[in-house]
Amino acid sequence: MTESAGERDTYRVEAFSDGVFAIAITLLVLEFKVPRLGPAASGPELWAALQTLWPSLVAFLGSFAAILIMWINHHGLFRMVRRVDAPFLYANGAMLLMVTFVPFPTAVLAEYLGHAGERVAAAFYCGTFVAVSLTFQLWWYTANRRRLLQAHVTPAAVARIWGAYRFGLAVYVAATLLSFWKAVAGLGLCVALWVYWAALSYRAES
Amino acid sequence: MTESAGERDTYRVEAFSDGVFAIAITLLVLEFKVPRLGPAASGPELWAALQTLWPSLVAFLGSFAAILIMWINHHGLFRMVRRVDAPFLYANGAMLLMVTFVPFPTAVLAEYLGHAGERVAAAFYCGTFVAVSLTFQLWWYTANRRRLLQAHVTPAAVARIWGAYRFGLAVYVAATLLSFWKAVAGLGLCVALWVYWAALSYRAES
Amino acid sequence: MTESAGERDTYRVEAFSDGVFAIAITLLVLEFKVPRLGPAASGPELWAALQTLWPSLVAFLGSFAAILIMWINHHGLFRMVRRVDAPFLYANGAMLLMVTFVPFPTAVLAEYLGHAGERVAAAFYCGTFVAVSLTFQLWWYTANRRRLLQAHVTPAAVARIWGAYRFGLAVYVAATLLSFWKAVAGLGLCVALWVYWAALSYRAES
Amino acid sequence: MTESAGERDTYRVEAFSDGVFAIAITLLVLEFKVPRLGPAASGPELWAALQTLWPSLVAFLGSFAAILIMWINHHGLFRMVRRVDAPFLYANGAMLLMVTFVPFPTAVLAEYLGHAGERVAAAFYCGTFVAVSLTFQLWWYTANRRRLLQAHVTPAAVARIWGAYRFGLAVYVAATLLSFWKAVAGLGLCVALWVYWAALSYRAES
Repeated sequence: MTESAGERDTYRVEAFSDGVFAIAITLLVLEFKVPRLGPAASGPELWAALQTLWPSLVAFLGSFAAILIMWINHHGLFRMVRRVDAPFLYANGAMLLMVTFVPFPTAVLAEYLGHAGERVAAAFYCGTFVAVSLTFQLWWYTANRRRLLQAHVTPAAVARIWGAYRFGLAVYVAATLLSFWKAVAGLGLCVALWVYWAALSYRAES
Repeated sequence: MTESAGERDTYRVEAFSDGVFAIAITLLVLEFKVPRLGPAASGPELWAALQTLWPSLVAFLGSFAAILIMWINHHGLFRMVRRVDAPFLYANGAMLLMVTFVPFPTAVLAEYLGHAGERVAAAFYCGTFVAVSLTFQLWWYTANRRRLLQAHVTPAAVARIWGAYRFGLAVYVAATLLSFWKAVAGLGLCVALWVYWAALSYRAES
Repeated sequence: MTESAGERDTYRVEAFSDGVFAIAITLLVLEFKVPRLGPAASGPELWAALQTLWPSLVAFLGSFAAILIMWINHHGLFRMVRRVDAPFLYANGAMLLMVTFVPFPTAVLAEYLGHAGERVAAAFYCGTFVAVSLTFQLWWYTANRRRLLQAHVTPAAVARIWGAYRFGLAVYVAATLLSFWKAVAGLGLCVALWVYWAALSYRAES
Repeated sequence: MTESAGERDTYRVEAFSDGVFAIAITLLVLEFKVPRLGPAASGPELWAALQTLWPSLVAFLGSFAAILIMWINHHGLFRMVRRVDAPFLYANGAMLLMVTFVPFPTAVLAEYLGHAGERVAAAFYCGTFVAVSLTFQLWWYTANRRRLLQAHVTPAAVARIWGAYRFGLAVYVAATLLSFWKAVAGLGLCVALWVYWAALSYRAES
């Protein structure tokens, strides 16, 4: 009748992870800097200053979408987890480390997009997702290696998820390299991946 | 005996959304800037400096009330949801995107209210709620379209909620336009809407 | 067998409130400012600079204790609540508004304690708790007025809590007034109240 | 059939603590400061500026690992707790106080590592963990003293945990002293402790 200890632990790790995702996604807004024009600034001046914040908006929208998709992904994967152990907690922690880090490259991108340093900023941004992708792979590797998955998860499902991760990693690496050539190309490739993933999960349930 | 997977998923989305609401509402306080008058500032000087923060107080109270009402609203709507799917998660994500964005126009309003740029700041603030309102409509549209509601939700109840959203959207658009004429008029209209909504939910349970 | 809707709602309000308390208490640390002495600063210079942060430490410890006690208090009161309704949600929201506001007077106190403006900063700090106390009274008033309490809560218990709130309010008003005369006297009175309350709840369970 | 009041209380304290851990660990990223080089900065200049942030990265990784291990530790200890009372809530609060404080010494370390003041910054950082360790001991002392543990927790298990705490405290004190001699020695000792603890919990479940 009572919840098993294993279920309760799994639940607590999920709740903690959700908390970290929720905070990281909400901290993104701190990257918008209020224009400090002084009390004498006219309406049109403020309007013009707000418009120069478009790089912040782009970075905010991108990172919000990325963290949301990661959360939905994590949410789906956790449905397959039967119990947790210490190695899994550290793998999950490595993944959360990268999730909490995302607001920083986002702020760097917001500062330099549209300026001379934008290629480095975009490469730093895309490169962060290379690391994110690697920690998700570590997560999945640990869950499999330590036999933490539900009995109903088939080898075919496991292989399909490995395929998706390898594909994601390859795209992020390509986006990072592309950024050094043209910032918008690298960032566009990341966005295309996120749209593709969203469409995929969208279709899966239609 | 055990909770169904659908209920558990619904619960997790609700908990994640609550986390985002709770963080966004608590981050509003960061918009208050401590007056930096130096160590020699006298008590009356500090007192005068604190009084000049009234625009921050107005913006804080307004946005706190707005997010609280949105949370209560979200809370009520979620009672009608039976299960969640991927499209709904993205619609819910779009709504959370706008909720996490609210602290930024709040900070802009706090900076410019009472100064020359206040009309643009107020229009930006009210315009944010136009976008918030649209994402709530997307949320409601998705929940209906994908048949995610409980069986006991009647068509009449669904229509009543659509009516409330259309009314809210119209008021926010009017408030945004009014702000360009007089900041206090646009902001006052938003506040009137919030008071009306609070009174409505208040009366519904009296 | 299933949890009632009333219990689930009560639980969700409690979880949301806990989130706000947890965030407000964790944001207090942002009030510590890293000394910016430049790369050439020696160890003893950094050490001296860290020591000048004692007002931040005092403010941090005080507000942390205050929010912790409020949370424990809220925790105890919620055990008496059977169900929630809309008016109660707004009363609870008013209380959360004041809880999220606490980091700001804390930062003001940290900036001015030990300087000429400290009496105003201390009065502002203590005065904030006058408002906090009033919102807790609104909370308790609403819970009683709308008959939301568990059947086992006796009139004697209700009266005892009213007494505690009236006493707390009187002490906070006195502390605010005392602060205008001597900052340390007002702050000391607040601390004395918190120690008294902690000791009371401590003894109640020994 | 229903959850006991004791279990529900324990759960709520755990959830509140998890919230504080999740927020503190996510706030660490705010310590990274976006290089403000102006719009004319070239890519290589931005790249060079990002590389000078290595002390921030070291401090971020260290504190993230430390808070994660504390959370996993807290998670394991809470499994042994049967019920909570007021003294325990204050002991748990003291521990959370130290957890929320960690981002500040982390930011100080990030600012001064690699510069003249690094030894004081490292000692301040390690010294914070001395205090953290003491609050964990207070937590464990209170849980034992007030007989809050599950019946199945053996005296041998209790003694083993005491031993681990005493060892941790001794290492942190040594690290603090070592820091005054060489920053990297003190910090390295802390990292060695965290790796040892992680390896220990890792092995326990292999």
